[in-house]
Amino acid sequence: MTTQHDLFDSVKEQTILTQIAALSGWDALTGMPKDAGHFRAEMDAYLAEKLFQVSTGSARKKILEDLEADDSSLDSLGHLVLQKARKDFDMTGNIPEQDFIAFQKTLSEAQDFWARAREANDYKVYQPYLERIISYLKQFIPLWQKNEKTPYDVLLNQYEPGLTVEKLDAVFDQVKNGITTLRHKLSANDSIPNDEFLSRKVTKVQQSKYAMAAAQRLGYKLNKGRLDDTIHPFMEALNRDDARITTRWDENNFQMAVLGILHEAGHGLFEQNVDSKYDDVRSVLPISMSIHESQSLFNEVMVGRSKEFWAVEYPKLQAIVAPTFDDINFDQFYQAWLKTEATLIRTEADPLTYPLHIIIRYEIEKAIFNDNVDISDLPALWNKKYKEYLGLEVPDDLTGILQDIHWAGGSFGYFPSYALGHLYAAQFRATMTKTLDFKAIFESGDYSPIFEWRKEHVWQYGGAVDPNKVLEDATGEPLNPQYWLDFVNGLYENFK
Amino acid sequence: MTTQHDLFDSVKEQTILTQIAALSGWDALTGMPKDAGHFRAEMDAYLAEKLFQVSTGSARKKILEDLEADDSSLDSLGHLVLQKARKDFDMTGNIPEQDFIAFQKTLSEAQDFWARAREANDYKVYQPYLERIISYLKQFIPLWQKNEKTPYDVLLNQYEPGLTVEKLDAVFDQVKNGITTLRHKLSANDSIPNDEFLSRKVTKVQQSKYAMAAAQRLGYKLNKGRLDDTIHPFMEALNRDDARITTRWDENNFQMAVLGILHEAGHGLFEQNVDSKYDDVRSVLPISMSIHESQSLFNEVMVGRSKEFWAVEYPKLQAIVAPTFDDINFDQFYQAWLKTEATLIRTEADPLTYPLHIIIRYEIEKAIFNDNVDISDLPALWNKKYKEYLGLEVPDDLTGILQDIHWAGGSFGYFPSYALGHLYAAQFRATMTKTLDFKAIFESGDYSPIFEWRKEHVWQYGGAVDPNKVLEDATGEPLNPQYWLDFVNGLYENFK
Repeated sequence: MTTQHDLFDSVKEQTILTQIAALSGWDALTGMPKDAGHFRAEMDAYLAEKLFQVSTGSARKKILEDLEADDSSLDSLGHLVLQKARKDFDMTGNIPEQDFIAFQKTLSEAQDFWARAREANDYKVYQPYLERIISYLKQFIPLWQKNEKTPYDVLLNQYEPGLTVEKLDAVFDQVKNGITTLRHKLSANDSIPNDEFLSRKVTKVQQSKYAMAAAQRLGYKLNKGRLDDTIHPFMEALNRDDARITTRWDENNFQMAVLGILHEAGHGLFEQNVDSKYDDVRSVLPISMSIHESQSLFNEVMVGRSKEFWAVEYPKLQAIVAPTFDDINFDQFYQAWLKTEATLIRTEADPLTYPLHIIIRYEIEKAIFNDNVDISDLPALWNKKYKEYLGLEVPDDLTGILQDIHWAGGSFGYFPSYALGHLYAAQFRATMTKTLDFKAIFESGDYSPIFEWRKEHVWQYGGAVDPNKVLEDATGEPLNPQYWLDFVNGLYENFK
Repeated sequence: MTTQHDLFDSVKEQTILTQIAALSGWDALTGMPKDAGHFRAEMDAYLAEKLFQVSTGSARKKILEDLEADDSSLDSLGHLVLQKARKDFDMTGNIPEQDFIAFQKTLSEAQDFWARAREANDYKVYQPYLERIISYLKQFIPLWQKNEKTPYDVLLNQYEPGLTVEKLDAVFDQVKNGITTLRHKLSANDSIPNDEFLSRKVTKVQQSKYAMAAAQRLGYKLNKGRLDDTIHPFMEALNRDDARITTRWDENNFQMAVLGILHEAGHGLFEQNVDSKYDDVRSVLPISMSIHESQSLFNEVMVGRSKEFWAVEYPKLQAIVAPTFDDINFDQFYQAWLKTEATLIRTEADPLTYPLHIIIRYEIEKAIFNDNVDISDLPALWNKKYKEYLGLEVPDDLTGILQDIHWAGGSFGYFPSYALGHLYAAQFRATMTKTLDFKAIFESGDYSPIFEWRKEHVWQYGGAVDPNKVLEDATGEPLNPQYWLDFVNGLYENFK
């Protein structure tokens, strides 16, 4: 007889394989010798095949079917794991195997041709592969569709349970209008803060010393993590006791690594503080991107751009880099720290304009899947929106539509999570400030009340509770973008 | 019908699993966060179980039996792989499963109690576990025994094909006498070189800069390797394009890391230069310890202690650490570099006395397995031999019998490989000097003729050819310890 024990055994194997794949992925992006890529590709393909077998093979299928027919052995976690394992199974299990394999191959080619297109600075090199990916997805959507209203809703729902075009349209409209109004106000103010000192030389050692100390004050633990260098920073968690962060360095732009480390440490904090009861079943309870990002952005923006934090932290930074900023007082520092400016590149955007980059991608993805826009028209569409929302002329594909790898990896419906992360973070913060005095907490030097609130209301649940429920339970209401708008308005209110 | 293809598929899976285990092992000893050990133990246990299944499971058994019955599909590599896979299979396949599992459990406990015994500085804490390991091995030896003459021969043969007590007794007698004679000569010379400057501060950055440049001049490639910090230095090769070395640092003893890095880079050189035709079957063709060690020791001793090398390298080192050694001329440097002194700890021994540490362990192991000496008598035996061979009083178990982890890991018959490594290295060097002028090569700055010789005569074969055959093919004669004695005599000839 099949019991919860069989399900958990199978999911534990999946969890261990996921952990191995995470170690390999981290290593490949931090220190793997350059020539070893071809051997690593074989190893990763083997792991992917094993993971596929475990999560969609006949043994898993039988376990799911048996337990769906007789769930008497399941406790509440068992029910959840069954439901999540079924969802994963259906994601690939509903697709004919040869289509799935062909799709994977297309993704791998597309990423290669995305890189070549970037080298050639020419979208057309990559366009045929993007077309094939989209065409596969349009073929798969009906196989995935349950009660979602539009094709794009199916994709949104995969990354963020319950998210719909209807909801997002309303949320993003409100955000777009709010940003536009605020940017208008700011542009009327013609004094530009002097931020030349932000490019003064701060050594990697100094940057690391300050940023890692700050990350640890916010609760990131080095006995459960580490910091490595990489090209595109990320956090990789093998498990809750091994959540590694990475960064890149620019000795003439210390802001990048400081905010980057706070950001990745926010992801790490989440992983380090998931309840241990989910250890074995972690692989079917991945943390949704939106809420994960809400925690990295909480660190980076809600804390890392706030005046009360820097009022306390700036002297610590000054001391570590002394005498580099001895002539810059706090007001000068903070004005420069907050400086906002529209950019062409999403990953370089400031907290105010960032959501506009996401909204542009969202609108294009919606046009692709719901309005069947022609794929050859995407660059023009992209450039038009950058002009309209950010006031920027896109000079070429490289700084335009070719900047993100996501679509080449088949990730459509994923971008909105980044914006949701910002909105969730602000809503959490608004609730926290009802009971926590951030200014007093930072001044006390003991940041643990903030840590404890986040652990209790967000982190402990890992991926076991859907993000919209975590948000509602923690804040008492569903997603409300007004909190974010209030936050950025507050941030830039006294901006000179 | 079972063909070579099936065998190679199965061995390739084993190779990939071995590679994953190597990555995990490297990570655990270099950068894994401290708290992550319990998760890593689960992951490693999973990998060990998979490896065990692949290499000793029923599928492998059938492949071996089918191909032994009909080998018509095998080419010459196929024959070799079949033979090696069979040997691996029999190592565990001949042991009843419950005994094998109990033995593994004992090993894991023994390592724990070895560590506790070290903390307590008391052999007795560990003795019962050592007894159980030895008793298991005595039970397994008859199951492994083919035509080996004595029980200990069975163990020796597992690490070094064809090695016997008879051969080793003769070799080690010659070595022991040779060292004793030379040490006598040296002790008559009462001037002790001044080596205080070896403890002058050399920063980690300087040490790394010099040692890695030297390792690369000897051919170690960083696009197929990397250097990390660790506690007990090692080389870990995932594959020939990913052979990672590690070191530890002491800013007041730069000799340790310089020689250590040369040593580990020697292991790395071997792995980086194995012929690509063995890539997929690497897991059943591991490189024997003795010949592996011959290459690390070639770097460390044959090169790294030689006058002709340092005559060229010392100015490079001086330049990197300037002005630290500006007042030390080459003769002063080299006299100190070669200083010999008996030590209690094997891993701190100089090249002259090192083999005596091994000979002591060899004689004790032989006494255990061939003469059934009482395990409670081992410390007394140990201490007696250190007094007799090295003239040292062993003050306690920690600096005596508890210094090595090997026996707690079940490795008996392994220590002689370390000594063989020294002897092989010297014999290779003696042959090389017939056609290569080391002095001229080092002076030219292009060390590649040495690299090419080692690649052609040693490295390319990986573990496909037995070490004694590699040695004989390369040097024209079987193991002859006189080359090593000649080398150390030459080294210390003009020693003041």
